[in-house]
Amino acid sequence: MTGEIDASAAVMGRRNMLGPPGSLNTITPCAACKLLRRRCAEECPFSPYFSPHEPHKFAAVHKVFGASNVSKMLMEVPEPQRADAANSLVFEANVRLRDPVYGCMGAISALQQQVQTLQAELNAVRAEILRYKYREAANTIIASTNAAHSSANSDSNGLEE
Amino acid sequence: MTGEIDASAAVMGRRNMLGPPGSLNTITPCAACKLLRRRCAEECPFSPYFSPHEPHKFAAVHKVFGASNVSKMLMEVPEPQRADAANSLVFEANVRLRDPVYGCMGAISALQQQVQTLQAELNAVRAEILRYKYREAANTIIASTNAAHSSANSDSNGLEE
Repeated sequence: MTGEIDASAAVMGRRNMLGPPGSLNTITPCAACKLLRRRCAEECPFSPYFSPHEPHKFAAVHKVFGASNVSKMLMEVPEPQRADAANSLVFEANVRLRDPVYGCMGAISALQQQVQTLQAELNAVRAEILRYKYREAANTIIASTNAAHSSANSDSNGLEE
Repeated sequence: MTGEIDASAAVMGRRNMLGPPGSLNTITPCAACKLLRRRCAEECPFSPYFSPHEPHKFAAVHKVFGASNVSKMLMEVPEPQRADAANSLVFEANVRLRDPVYGCMGAISALQQQVQTLQAELNAVRAEILRYKYREAANTIIASTNAAHSSANSDSNGLEE
């Protein structure tokens, strides 16, 4: 997920649209105002997050959440987190457009299953390691017992001589 | 996730609202029509999926997606999948209400990280098993070599007697 990179690019979008210093200040409307065919004012709630260079992003959230809900949800989070919120809304909308029945729930459910499978595999492999450890410990005990026996035998042989 | 159980409960909701046979057919409006203060007609797009017994479900999707978007998204999927779609929208809306900045993306990202951690652990444990296997194989070779040696020694001892 490259959300934060996209977000900072979106924040830069509007500034880059301004002409060189001294020229007429004609701001290219943001992706939202372009789609909604409205004037993109300085206090537009969408412009910092929906660059005109990425119209598909606003198109997606507009289709899934609706423009007024997106604006409301952005306004409800603290300003420094709005870029992240906008990106997560774009992400969620794209997942819903790809999977209209399950959306993000489908992705979450698949990942939860993957986590369960991996945990079961990990438990199985750890149990296998335990078996190796026991076997190795048992072999060490047998080997040291044998060594003690053979040393005792050679000692007694020495005494018999 | 108990999505499917909830879905069938929601589908049953409207039918259960009908009075006993022969009584006046006064249908209790579904959760959506109740919230939107509109008449819940027989062809209401929400009533099969939003039981009046669970008003919080429609309240959540209404707040996040908006009623008209929910209706549109439900109508866009084949009828047998609409209960699943309604449940996944409720799930997604609840996650967004709990985490207004990251929503489902936060959950997906956390799960993806968990999968990565588990895969790394699994690789490490598998490497450990390989080391045990090599050690065991080496010990077997050493033991059989020793056995061959001592048998050869006892044979030669026997010859010397």
